[in-house]
Amino acid sequence: MRCLLQGIKNEEITLEEGVRRLRAMPFEELGFATLDQHRQIRQGFPEVVYCAGKTVEQIVAILQRLLQGNERNNMLLTRAEPEVYDAVIQAVPEALYEPLARMIMVYHGKQERRGQILVLSAGTSDIPVAEEAALTAEVMGNQVERVYDVGVAGIHRVLSKTDQLQNARVIIVVAGMEGALASVVGGLTNRPVIAVPTSVGYGASFGGLAALLAMLNSCAGGVGVVNIDNGFGAGYLANNINRLGESR
Amino acid sequence: MRCLLQGIKNEEITLEEGVRRLRAMPFEELGFATLDQHRQIRQGFPEVVYCAGKTVEQIVAILQRLLQGNERNNMLLTRAEPEVYDAVIQAVPEALYEPLARMIMVYHGKQERRGQILVLSAGTSDIPVAEEAALTAEVMGNQVERVYDVGVAGIHRVLSKTDQLQNARVIIVVAGMEGALASVVGGLTNRPVIAVPTSVGYGASFGGLAALLAMLNSCAGGVGVVNIDNGFGAGYLANNINRLGESR
Amino acid sequence: MRCLLQGIKNEEITLEEGVRRLRAMPFEELGFATLDQHRQIRQGFPEVVYCAGKTVEQIVAILQRLLQGNERNNMLLTRAEPEVYDAVIQAVPEALYEPLARMIMVYHGKQERRGQILVLSAGTSDIPVAEEAALTAEVMGNQVERVYDVGVAGIHRVLSKTDQLQNARVIIVVAGMEGALASVVGGLTNRPVIAVPTSVGYGASFGGLAALLAMLNSCAGGVGVVNIDNGFGAGYLANNINRLGESR
Amino acid sequence: MRCLLQGIKNEEITLEEGVRRLRAMPFEELGFATLDQHRQIRQGFPEVVYCAGKTVEQIVAILQRLLQGNERNNMLLTRAEPEVYDAVIQAVPEALYEPLARMIMVYHGKQERRGQILVLSAGTSDIPVAEEAALTAEVMGNQVERVYDVGVAGIHRVLSKTDQLQNARVIIVVAGMEGALASVVGGLTNRPVIAVPTSVGYGASFGGLAALLAMLNSCAGGVGVVNIDNGFGAGYLANNINRLGESR
Amino acid sequence: MRCLLQGIKNEEITLEEGVRRLRAMPFEELGFATLDQHRQIRQGFPEVVYCAGKTVEQIVAILQRLLQGNERNNMLLTRAEPEVYDAVIQAVPEALYEPLARMIMVYHGKQERRGQILVLSAGTSDIPVAEEAALTAEVMGNQVERVYDVGVAGIHRVLSKTDQLQNARVIIVVAGMEGALASVVGGLTNRPVIAVPTSVGYGASFGGLAALLAMLNSCAGGVGVVNIDNGFGAGYLANNINRLGESR
Amino acid sequence: MRCLLQGIKNEEITLEEGVRRLRAMPFEELGFATLDQHRQIRQGFPEVVYCAGKTVEQIVAILQRLLQGNERNNMLLTRAEPEVYDAVIQAVPEALYEPLARMIMVYHGKQERRGQILVLSAGTSDIPVAEEAALTAEVMGNQVERVYDVGVAGIHRVLSKTDQLQNARVIIVVAGMEGALASVVGGLTNRPVIAVPTSVGYGASFGGLAALLAMLNSCAGGVGVVNIDNGFGAGYLANNINRLGESR
Amino acid sequence: MRCLLQGIKNEEITLEEGVRRLRAMPFEELGFATLDQHRQIRQGFPEVVYCAGKTVEQIVAILQRLLQGNERNNMLLTRAEPEVYDAVIQAVPEALYEPLARMIMVYHGKQERRGQILVLSAGTSDIPVAEEAALTAEVMGNQVERVYDVGVAGIHRVLSKTDQLQNARVIIVVAGMEGALASVVGGLTNRPVIAVPTSVGYGASFGGLAALLAMLNSCAGGVGVVNIDNGFGAGYLANNINRLGESR
Amino acid sequence: MRCLLQGIKNEEITLEEGVRRLRAMPFEELGFATLDQHRQIRQGFPEVVYCAGKTVEQIVAILQRLLQGNERNNMLLTRAEPEVYDAVIQAVPEALYEPLARMIMVYHGKQERRGQILVLSAGTSDIPVAEEAALTAEVMGNQVERVYDVGVAGIHRVLSKTDQLQNARVIIVVAGMEGALASVVGGLTNRPVIAVPTSVGYGASFGGLAALLAMLNSCAGGVGVVNIDNGFGAGYLANNINRLGESR
Repeated sequence: MRCLLQGIKNEEITLEEGVRRLRAMPFEELGFATLDQHRQIRQGFPEVVYCAGKTVEQIVAILQRLLQGNERNNMLLTRAEPEVYDAVIQAVPEALYEPLARMIMVYHGKQERRGQILVLSAGTSDIPVAEEAALTAEVMGNQVERVYDVGVAGIHRVLSKTDQLQNARVIIVVAGMEGALASVVGGLTNRPVIAVPTSVGYGASFGGLAALLAMLNSCAGGVGVVNIDNGFGAGYLANNINRLGESR
Repeated sequence: MRCLLQGIKNEEITLEEGVRRLRAMPFEELGFATLDQHRQIRQGFPEVVYCAGKTVEQIVAILQRLLQGNERNNMLLTRAEPEVYDAVIQAVPEALYEPLARMIMVYHGKQERRGQILVLSAGTSDIPVAEEAALTAEVMGNQVERVYDVGVAGIHRVLSKTDQLQNARVIIVVAGMEGALASVVGGLTNRPVIAVPTSVGYGASFGGLAALLAMLNSCAGGVGVVNIDNGFGAGYLANNINRLGESR
Repeated sequence: MRCLLQGIKNEEITLEEGVRRLRAMPFEELGFATLDQHRQIRQGFPEVVYCAGKTVEQIVAILQRLLQGNERNNMLLTRAEPEVYDAVIQAVPEALYEPLARMIMVYHGKQERRGQILVLSAGTSDIPVAEEAALTAEVMGNQVERVYDVGVAGIHRVLSKTDQLQNARVIIVVAGMEGALASVVGGLTNRPVIAVPTSVGYGASFGGLAALLAMLNSCAGGVGVVNIDNGFGAGYLANNINRLGESR
Repeated sequence: MRCLLQGIKNEEITLEEGVRRLRAMPFEELGFATLDQHRQIRQGFPEVVYCAGKTVEQIVAILQRLLQGNERNNMLLTRAEPEVYDAVIQAVPEALYEPLARMIMVYHGKQERRGQILVLSAGTSDIPVAEEAALTAEVMGNQVERVYDVGVAGIHRVLSKTDQLQNARVIIVVAGMEGALASVVGGLTNRPVIAVPTSVGYGASFGGLAALLAMLNSCAGGVGVVNIDNGFGAGYLANNINRLGESR
Repeated sequence: MRCLLQGIKNEEITLEEGVRRLRAMPFEELGFATLDQHRQIRQGFPEVVYCAGKTVEQIVAILQRLLQGNERNNMLLTRAEPEVYDAVIQAVPEALYEPLARMIMVYHGKQERRGQILVLSAGTSDIPVAEEAALTAEVMGNQVERVYDVGVAGIHRVLSKTDQLQNARVIIVVAGMEGALASVVGGLTNRPVIAVPTSVGYGASFGGLAALLAMLNSCAGGVGVVNIDNGFGAGYLANNINRLGESR
Repeated sequence: MRCLLQGIKNEEITLEEGVRRLRAMPFEELGFATLDQHRQIRQGFPEVVYCAGKTVEQIVAILQRLLQGNERNNMLLTRAEPEVYDAVIQAVPEALYEPLARMIMVYHGKQERRGQILVLSAGTSDIPVAEEAALTAEVMGNQVERVYDVGVAGIHRVLSKTDQLQNARVIIVVAGMEGALASVVGGLTNRPVIAVPTSVGYGASFGGLAALLAMLNSCAGGVGVVNIDNGFGAGYLANNINRLGESR
Repeated sequence: MRCLLQGIKNEEITLEEGVRRLRAMPFEELGFATLDQHRQIRQGFPEVVYCAGKTVEQIVAILQRLLQGNERNNMLLTRAEPEVYDAVIQAVPEALYEPLARMIMVYHGKQERRGQILVLSAGTSDIPVAEEAALTAEVMGNQVERVYDVGVAGIHRVLSKTDQLQNARVIIVVAGMEGALASVVGGLTNRPVIAVPTSVGYGASFGGLAALLAMLNSCAGGVGVVNIDNGFGAGYLANNINRLGESR
Repeated sequence: MRCLLQGIKNEEITLEEGVRRLRAMPFEELGFATLDQHRQIRQGFPEVVYCAGKTVEQIVAILQRLLQGNERNNMLLTRAEPEVYDAVIQAVPEALYEPLARMIMVYHGKQERRGQILVLSAGTSDIPVAEEAALTAEVMGNQVERVYDVGVAGIHRVLSKTDQLQNARVIIVVAGMEGALASVVGGLTNRPVIAVPTSVGYGASFGGLAALLAMLNSCAGGVGVVNIDNGFGAGYLANNINRLGESR
């Protein structure tokens, strides 16, 4: 903004132009969507498209506009059903699809590989959410290690993973049912732990509420919680944390 | 009942008497309370007095009536504030009081000591509920071992208790916050585990709801859950389980 | 573990080998699943496969690996839809299927028959959950008696079952709607009662919440509660309780 | 209203007067309260004063105005703390107080005694609510029989009351905790059953929610439910039902 | 029971027979169902079959057994989908079906017609539940008047129905959304009001919770509430109330 | 009403007729629906047909009757699936359909255009609800400006809309997930803000509960909230507010 | 902002000064509070002090700073306990206190009186919240009429207020318990209705939740809802609506 | 552990000793507490004492034992009422107390100061929780900047803090009511954001639930949430994140 004001003062930019730029610059309007083109600069990654509740036509239109100016950035579409991918592949042939995690990824150019993010899942049924987290972190330029099905019913399984726990810079714990794995891992490490409750379970799991409450009440410190089934959010936060080392 | 019918048939008991006995026998009415005098026979322990919501006068009256015919049985009053004890001690001088667990116990005669019940608590703040469970089990004739403050934030604490876990016939796990200890213990043993959620915690623990839901959703099997803060219920169920060995 | 350490001291096992064994021994990793091969030893029954949320391929792979080393143990798969059974039967021809309870059972070798577990259901609609409990207990080696549709709206139905209540060592009560049967049975017996709320009902049953809360608040003692519709958990806990008599 | 219109047509009442009466007649305004003076006619009993949340001054002012024109009717004040009674007694010396039920009653003239209403309570702690129901019904002119502390943990207690269940025209069941007594009584009678959940309990009773849900989900038909702790509402509805016989 | 005991005393019935009869008499066991054959005597109407959650085969078998001994009684099946009716009609050709209310009715012999029950619905979408209530009351021998779509958004609609409100002996109010009609009607009459919340609505109606809570908190007295969408329960309770006049 | 009474006094209207008119006038009965024909007069717009839960036949019948006497008024049907429109178009050929908002609109004659209502949506997925609000306001005679996808994750998007915020007389904010846009807009304007939470989101959005609670707790004043997904209600309230200027 | 940029361009303001002003201008920082000094301009009324959760010292400091520059504006403090007033009166002698509504008002200079806002309360116990709404509207320059205790249990009370309903430009409905008054009023008027649920009630009112849900589900349109007990919010929104007429 | 096994192999440690050490080493038992003495090594900070629910005697005893071996580490006690501090100061004279945050801090030796953590609060009433977070981070060796009362009702307040947002390595957002500040800040930065919902609010804030749900549903990514009012947890997690840079 300082640059903009400087320009006005220097009369390089007219006053009207200044007001116009101040308002219109950082996004573009498609009518049904207002794209945040500067997110790559402000947040380090282009806007991610959350596909649920959008029509296929809207998704493709958003994607095409986002690609303009982000030709060298990776891109990500979450909660994408197969029919979304069928349309996206027409417009962006290099797009990849991961059906389990329901994600579409577009890899462009090179990406540095930041130090390790560890993704743990309590059960096999939690893997789709865990993969959403892992793939998000990978697309954003992080190395990811996956360790799945190490829930607390067999506590020795996670205890045997001390090497991985030590080597990781950030740990993502994905668990449904009672979500106890987050507390146990939180007590074993001093690395930041991101807990993702899942809707895996039935009855009194109430769609993931049980795991969510458990993780929020973790008796171990150092645990931040994201929304139920929000693997993307966990991967994104892990990326933001992992990137910290670089900026010193 | 068969005996009663036999008596009627043999004309030892008149018909009217039979009807009267069938109805009136197993309890006594105090107006404000209908005492279940046969509970000792039917359930193996006299009726326990839950003091919350009763006046001191009601409690003393109930206790005195229960004592008649239960002179050789231990008795128990739960959720008893100190002023209740002050009144009870007048009527039953041998009554003992445990303020932490808010329990009054009356020991009468000898009691066999059944094999071990292990009571674990996740934190120091869970001890009042854990003590309610432990004392209940002791009054009913069980040996109890207590291991407190072994929550999962330091998982090695409970792992070091493998001897106690092996020796116990029944295990009671008392935990607030996220209640994860129940799942971990459930995975370490094949003994019946009784989980007691406590209201220890704040915010999204919602008065123990978080621990309750976690325990109900335990990924480890073999865990039965009782009401929030219901140490008495856990001790009572543990006694019923522990007694099973005898009756074979 | 003592054995392992002894081996290291005696130089029968190298140090590196000791570290490796300590970590890797009790489970096997399939990538998507981390199998707990020692559960038969630690818990008395091999790991049970909860099929919901797993692909058919994952289930078959898990089952095949579990069978290695458990050739003489019974096995159990819960929440198995018919298409799961179609695949399992290819790999394990002796597998049996119970569609009502959605369970697959594999019987291997002989099993002792422990004393009786009684399974009560309040209504006809609760039978699928009741059968999950009953079959679980049977596969694990217990005799089971079933008494169905004896809810409290006709209280004489359960009162007429006093013989069965007397003979049982453990009682499982399966009930939806208001779940009152658990309290009534809890008051009639001194045997451990395991209460299973079901999602049978509508409106303010809120998917079984009404029955769950009722059972947790049972005015009769000696009742442990498992998750809504968790017939398996009830059968498993009943087995752990029933087995207690043997180990004295 | 027909009378009023007739009067207008006959010119006994002027038009303006007609409009005025139509609006202002059936209540009086005190500024802070708008009294419904015709409720005795429309509903068969004068407006009842719910004292919670009103100042003592407001209560006395309302009572005095209600007494005008209701000199021969009984009156009722609910949720009245002792200090309310201290003020009321000054204004209405014949007012009676029942501290347990927190009710003030004013008896005026004679009252027929309609056939029996039976009030059952599950526990001793439920008596204050049960008394609110019983006293309400009595003030409104019904005979009431009380049977307290007959909860389902000792099912024979309520089963022994078949005479009372047979003789009653309406049955009020007051129960906290799991509220199962309503279902059991509903199954034993074809009389209308009014169920009153109470806030007696702790933990997962959630202030009476458990009992409320249980009663709404009663597997026995013929049960109508009122608000938690709403003894007054139950007594009032019972009166309305009991009065039906008269009007034939 | 007195008769049975008398028979034993007179040696008309052997003792063993007495014990057997006492237990086995009032119901029959089908394995999956325990039929309460004496409900007609105890409750004035045979057991009603709630079809949800039962297989078609179970329903037909229950119905056939219930018909034995109830040849002259009307019968009722609720929550019956069309395929249930297709099977029932084979076994009971005189069975009638009402698809809106999802009810099957079997009329046998004559039925007295008791005085009027008024069924009000707040909206058109509430009619299926209202019809369940109305048909239940009719099958049980009551005259029913229906007044539909008179919700409080146009308060004059219900105010114009004062004749019907006056003539009714019992009033059933069926309403979804905010359920305010119950309070308004409760204030207009001194007849017993049975309120049925429905799941009609969306968003913050939470499946009928909003209407349920509103009805429980009715500022007008004399309102008893049944479960969400429980038209049957309302009709059944109305019948029990309406029948009161007869028994005096 | 004064007119009616005047007519009675003048004997232009008989007394019986007066009673009849007073009751029957302002609506018509179709059996399943009680139409409020005077709503145009009392509320300024004819009754709107909420189609969910009504059969196509009912909807068409209601629409036809409403059209009588409203020939010059616009009409509105909400929550109308395509099959409803297929039937309506037969009866009312000029009816228009907006599938995204699931609305049918009938434009009749001219409509004034009141000053601007601004409809903001936080995301693209919120557009169906936003359109329901916008179309409702338009049908009722208001100018509407739409600004979509300006959620707070890119706060500059809404900040750039200050002109629109200034020009609007009423602002409708439609947002799911955390619903924060309502608070931000509330702080930027002194115009009335109507907040519409949507069910857009997953997990702990609990069907729109998160956005609903957030909007109710807005730290900015001047925000009124309607039901989750209730675009119609927002548009209707905005119309009522916007019309205020005219009536001065 | 345009002015500021103009100043920069004209070199009347240095660039640094411009950046500084742009950021710091519209509020002042007290450390514990960041005062929004331009709210009078942006929102038409100075910042209102919500006293709950603030110390008396903080409140007085905030008030004194707000007064600077608002010497001719009225001011408002809500949720102020008497001890807050005792301190405020020292600093601002002209401050007035309304203990029922717990509000402190400072009147400065003259205020126009906009056309009428009608405040209705369902019961006497709702008056404190109703007064908070009424006083807020008055301080902000609106005429207010109060009509209290006209709940739907005596529907004729509110029906008799048609004159007041007609004359009002905005209507605020304050109701606890089942909150039905909002729907009834919404159906009687085409003026904007602001509904304020209150926490008046007990049991299943769940602290005002019942009234809140009822109001959100109002079957009558044109109703906007604010938080439970939020009289201030209702008065503030009513002011924003009422002011609309002026700005045309 | 490798060291321990090496010692056994080398016969420097006896086998029995090895088993004993393996189990008993990392904690100490006080009966009521099991202290985790190695937490400084495993987690980088000694065990923190959560004082709520513990007696003053227990707290002092725990503190004294923790001090042994942690003489050069800072220590922290949370949720400490003044009477706890009065006792602690006797035992640890250098202990400091912060009454607003209810924290006791013991500073020992020097601490490096890691780069900046920014703590934002939405309101003045949120400061106690914000201070708990800030002090926790400071005691653990981080620089902290505080910016309070910058909620979204005046969005320019937080927008003016771009310098602080840029300079921070981790951002903690503390907000009650609707908790919208977390989403807004999440959209303005690519730094990790830790959101702390507070119980500030009333009515439908339901003790912080509204803010909690809002934060979990943040439309901006990169936000991790901790329990309601859990300032400590946020400070602790921020420390773990901030420490990451060091370990590269």
